[in-house]
Amino acid sequence: MALMTDFKTEYSNYVKIVNDTLAGYLQFDDGPGSNIYNAMKYSLTAGGKRLRPVLAISVCDMLGGSRQDVLPFACALEMIHTYSLIHDDLPAMDNDDYRRGMPTNHKVFGEAMAILAGDALLNKAYEIMISHMLKRGEHTKAFAKAMDVIASNAGADGMIRGQTIDMESEGRTISGQTLEYMHRCKTGALIKASVLAGASIGNATSSEYDSLAKYADCIGLAFQIKDDIMDVKSSLEQMGKQAGSDAASNKTTYVTMFGLDKAEQLLDESVESAAAALECFGNRAAFLRELAFYIRDRKN
Amino acid sequence: MALMTDFKTEYSNYVKIVNDTLAGYLQFDDGPGSNIYNAMKYSLTAGGKRLRPVLAISVCDMLGGSRQDVLPFACALEMIHTYSLIHDDLPAMDNDDYRRGMPTNHKVFGEAMAILAGDALLNKAYEIMISHMLKRGEHTKAFAKAMDVIASNAGADGMIRGQTIDMESEGRTISGQTLEYMHRCKTGALIKASVLAGASIGNATSSEYDSLAKYADCIGLAFQIKDDIMDVKSSLEQMGKQAGSDAASNKTTYVTMFGLDKAEQLLDESVESAAAALECFGNRAAFLRELAFYIRDRKN
Repeated sequence: MALMTDFKTEYSNYVKIVNDTLAGYLQFDDGPGSNIYNAMKYSLTAGGKRLRPVLAISVCDMLGGSRQDVLPFACALEMIHTYSLIHDDLPAMDNDDYRRGMPTNHKVFGEAMAILAGDALLNKAYEIMISHMLKRGEHTKAFAKAMDVIASNAGADGMIRGQTIDMESEGRTISGQTLEYMHRCKTGALIKASVLAGASIGNATSSEYDSLAKYADCIGLAFQIKDDIMDVKSSLEQMGKQAGSDAASNKTTYVTMFGLDKAEQLLDESVESAAAALECFGNRAAFLRELAFYIRDRKN
Repeated sequence: MALMTDFKTEYSNYVKIVNDTLAGYLQFDDGPGSNIYNAMKYSLTAGGKRLRPVLAISVCDMLGGSRQDVLPFACALEMIHTYSLIHDDLPAMDNDDYRRGMPTNHKVFGEAMAILAGDALLNKAYEIMISHMLKRGEHTKAFAKAMDVIASNAGADGMIRGQTIDMESEGRTISGQTLEYMHRCKTGALIKASVLAGASIGNATSSEYDSLAKYADCIGLAFQIKDDIMDVKSSLEQMGKQAGSDAASNKTTYVTMFGLDKAEQLLDESVESAAAALECFGNRAAFLRELAFYIRDRKN
């Protein structure tokens, strides 16, 4: 119980650092076209768990890496995550009016500006990573590796591939293999990139890097199964528990595929595997271990 | 006249190299979600002048830089240009059905896929630059500088800022100062980034870099003035020359601002200034000098 309190405090501290640093990246003049920054800022400061930057920083911390060096990469990851949400919410995509209890970007700034704000956040992510690398002038290989793992996981072979499969599978039944591949791309890829960017900047050894990759795969999977379980449970609650296990939308999920009990068992197994992957780090990995359980036990 | 023929041949050779290299970056499997690559490829191979990559390569060539090293950056610039066109054409933006005589991306693949294809091309641009830097492991500073000038000119303080101003100024009169700023961002920024990325990879001296920056500013301005002049002339032709100088849309342009004669004079001056900025390079700059005149004399 003491550990749990420590974890929550530590997590909140990380979130505060991330929010403060993000704010610093969004300073702007009020000249023509500066409204693009208002649109970017609106979604970037709309809350959220900050899971990706917290992962990058805490992995780097565990390895004794530099906080100053990991922060730009952590913030870049949050910008990439946020741009993907803005574009996902657009009328042509999921057509969502609300996100985290607030009107979505296009509801406030209009569709055209929301498209541009997403583009600008994605580009800004690279701007701040590249600019940091150029400014520091040393440890360049670690920065390049971190950028490489982020870029390759965010694009057409990672997150965007996942979005594409998700969109194409709307209203269709997909195989368990495709479901897993979709989630590994759509959610897992950026979570993995966060862990591995932190590992690169913390100068992980090759074997530490592999252990962290395994940890990242497991929490990425756990994150998605938990999302699916929460979706079904909230649908069941709304429907007075009358509708059975296909209460959720017509999408294939871990729950529609395996049923609720088996999905919860898979979730437990993923979290246990994540914790096991951290064994080589001993006590230094306390925070990351708790983080796996936090992903399982979260309420939103 | 001989020079002009040489120029055209040389330009075509550059375009061929660019097209061949771009094709190599778009190899993909046919697994789930691979249609994202079809959408990216559709717009990336839909023709176009390839002005930005040609600028980057020819500047690097002039400085005796490595062709192998500049190509990924040249292709990245074309990918960034293409993504901006895909998003610009969307119904929420300019709502264009045709681009270069072919149906626009969203007309073929649907709006959602066009948004993702644009995102994926922007991300792919960074993927290939970062991956090349990591693979080469040397000259890292030159690569970082090239990426930095590309990233900072493509984003919310460059091209995207220009798009934002353009969108906001629709149907409104803007000042000459804002018009110039808008074009410097919207078109000029990526043209400048192309020249300066080539300069960085060609290891330009500080004074060569400054001269090339001046050249880039001048051709960027010339490019836009020429676009405005072509727009008006084609509108005048369509309207049987009855509609006078406000035949174009309700946007402020160099022609609506200064009139056709003065705009043509400004175009000549920009091209002459561009050529003058190349003096320090002597005969080595023959291609880039011709390129400035090509921008003035082009028919599309």
